[in-house]
Amino acid sequence: MKKILVSLAAITAITTLLSADTLIDSATKAGLKPIPSDKKELMKLIDNPKNPITDAKVALGTTLYLEPRLSKSGLISCNTCHNLGLGGTDGVSAATGHQWTANPHHLNSPTVYNAVFMDSQFWDGRDPDLEKQAQGPMQAAPEMAISKEMAVERVSSMPEYVDAFKKVYGDDKITFERIADTIAAFERTLVTPGKYDEFLAGDANALSADEKAGLKTFIDKGCASCHNGIALGGTMQPFPAVKPFKFADVGDFKGDKNGMVKVPTLRNITETAPYFHNGTVWDLAEAVKIMGETQLGATLTEKETASIVTFLKALNGKKPEVTYPQFPVSTDKTPKPVMN
Amino acid sequence: MKKILVSLAAITAITTLLSADTLIDSATKAGLKPIPSDKKELMKLIDNPKNPITDAKVALGTTLYLEPRLSKSGLISCNTCHNLGLGGTDGVSAATGHQWTANPHHLNSPTVYNAVFMDSQFWDGRDPDLEKQAQGPMQAAPEMAISKEMAVERVSSMPEYVDAFKKVYGDDKITFERIADTIAAFERTLVTPGKYDEFLAGDANALSADEKAGLKTFIDKGCASCHNGIALGGTMQPFPAVKPFKFADVGDFKGDKNGMVKVPTLRNITETAPYFHNGTVWDLAEAVKIMGETQLGATLTEKETASIVTFLKALNGKKPEVTYPQFPVSTDKTPKPVMN
Repeated sequence: MKKILVSLAAITAITTLLSADTLIDSATKAGLKPIPSDKKELMKLIDNPKNPITDAKVALGTTLYLEPRLSKSGLISCNTCHNLGLGGTDGVSAATGHQWTANPHHLNSPTVYNAVFMDSQFWDGRDPDLEKQAQGPMQAAPEMAISKEMAVERVSSMPEYVDAFKKVYGDDKITFERIADTIAAFERTLVTPGKYDEFLAGDANALSADEKAGLKTFIDKGCASCHNGIALGGTMQPFPAVKPFKFADVGDFKGDKNGMVKVPTLRNITETAPYFHNGTVWDLAEAVKIMGETQLGATLTEKETASIVTFLKALNGKKPEVTYPQFPVSTDKTPKPVMN
Repeated sequence: MKKILVSLAAITAITTLLSADTLIDSATKAGLKPIPSDKKELMKLIDNPKNPITDAKVALGTTLYLEPRLSKSGLISCNTCHNLGLGGTDGVSAATGHQWTANPHHLNSPTVYNAVFMDSQFWDGRDPDLEKQAQGPMQAAPEMAISKEMAVERVSSMPEYVDAFKKVYGDDKITFERIADTIAAFERTLVTPGKYDEFLAGDANALSADEKAGLKTFIDKGCASCHNGIALGGTMQPFPAVKPFKFADVGDFKGDKNGMVKVPTLRNITETAPYFHNGTVWDLAEAVKIMGETQLGATLTEKETASIVTFLKALNGKKPEVTYPQFPVSTDKTPKPVMN
C-alpha cells in the first residue's frame, strides 16, 4: 500500500513537472520572459551604457524622485503620480498635477515599476528611454510645471545636492539632463521579481495549479501576442485592434501618428487600477473582457476571464525597499515655491 | 614646560566645564529641557495613556500617515503638508491641499517633529493632543477633505488594514478616531534629539563655543521666556506682545479668543521656513530680529542676531528612519477618488 502511494506521488510529481515544462515552453514561444534572478544578467538588462547605474547615482536619484521641490510649487514629486507604495501609480483616472490640473488628454499615470523593460515610454511611445521620459513630467504644465532653469537652480542652491552630484559625476556640473538621468537610474532599479519569474525559470511549483491554468488560458487566447517580453507589455500596438473600445470617448488620445498605443505592463496589475490609457475601468475582470473583445475579437467566458485574472494576480512581485530621504535644507539661493 | 602646558590644558578644561555648568544652570532656570536620552523616561513623556504607543500601532500609523487614500482625492497624505523629509513641513507659505486650495487664513503648516512636546496643537491651540489634531486636517475642506465615513470606508475596504487594526486593537472595529489615534501614535515617536540635548544633559563639549555663546544670548535676551520646555515652544502666548507684527496683514489669523498664539518649536528651525503663523518670512535672521522687536521690544544687533542664529542651527536633531510603505491594494469596495 505504501509503495502504491509513493508511486502515485511520484507520478503526480512527474506529471506536474512535465506539464509545467510544456507550459514554460509555450510561454517562452509566446515571448514571455522572466526577470533574471542572476544579478549580473539583470544589471545588463536594466543598465544604460549612456547613463550607467552606480550606487551613488541611484541614491541621489531616489532622493530626487521623492523631492517635491523639483516641482514649481514645491509640493509635487515624481512619487505623487508614480507612488512607490501604490504599485507605482496614483490610483486616479487622469493624472492630476500643478494647480490641480488633470491631464488634458485624460491620460492615466502608468506605473514606474518595470518601466525599464518597456521598448519606449509614454502612452504614445514618444520617448525611447527613462532618461528622456523623466524630463517630461517635470516640465509639463499640468504635472510638476517646473522650468529646466528653475529645477537646476533649486538643486544647485543646496550644498548637499552639489556634493552628491560631485560624488556621482566627478564634477559639480548640475544640468536638467543630469537631474533626469539620476532619477532614471533609480527607476531602472525598480523591478519586481516574483513567483511568476521563478516559474518561468523552471520552478514547476512556484505557481499554483490554478495560476498555471490561467497562464495557459492567457497564452491560448492570444493575450501574449501583445502582452509579452519581461514586462508583459511595452511595445506599440494598434488599439483598438478589432472592435471599438467601449470608453474611447473619454479624453482625446488616439495613440501615436500611426494610431499605435503602448501596451501597459501586466506586472503588479492588481495595484494599478484604474485601467487603460484613460483610466476608465476599475475592475480587472472587466478590463480583461474588454481587451478580449477589442483586441482579439473574442468573447471570454466568465470562467476564462476568472482564470486569466488568477494568473494576472500571480504577476505581483517584490518591490525594492526605499528609505524615505531627509532632503537637503533650502538656502537663501533656493528659488521659492510658485503656486500659480 | 610640559607641566605648564598640561596645567594650562587642565585649567582650560575646568573653565569650560564650569562655564558650561553655569550655562546649563541658566538654561534650566529659563525652562529649557533636553529630550531625555533614557528610553523609558522618553517613553513616559511621549506616551498617551489613552492611546498607548505600541510597535504595531506605530507601524500602522506610519503607513496611514503616508497614505494618500485618506484624502478625498486619493492624492494627499499627512506627509504632503508635513513632509518627513522637509523638517516635517511643506516649505510653502500657506498650507495648500484639496483642489489646490490655500489655507483660508493663510496659515503655515507647522512641523510634525517634536509636536508631541507641545502643550496644545494648531496655531490657536484648539486641540489638546495629537490624537484630536490628526482628525482635523483629514476632514478640512482645503486639506485632505475626506469625510469620517469615507475615511473609515476606504480603510475598512482593504483586508490588510483590517488585519492591522485587529493586531493593534484586538478587534476589527475601524473608526475615524482609531485611524487618527494610530497616526498620532506614530507622530508621538517623531522626536529629534541632537547635540543640544547632549549639552543640556551635561556634555560640556557637545556644543561649540559659538553655539554656547548663542544659547547665552538667547537666554539673556529673553527668547526663552516663550521658547522654553523641551520643544522650545508649545505654549500659548500673546503675539504680537510689544510692537505690531510687520506682516500681520497677510491672512486674517488673530490667535485664539484671547488673542494668544501657539509658540512654534525652534527645533530643526533651519528646515521649517517660511516662518510665522502666516509663513511670511523666509530668512531665519530676519525672523529672529522681528521676534526681538514684536515680542521683546528689543532691537537686536547684527552680532546678537547672528549669535542666536548660530545657536538655533544647533537645535537640528536626528530624525527617525522611515521605510516607505507598500500600501494595501484597493478593492472593489474601496470608495473611488473624488477630485472635486
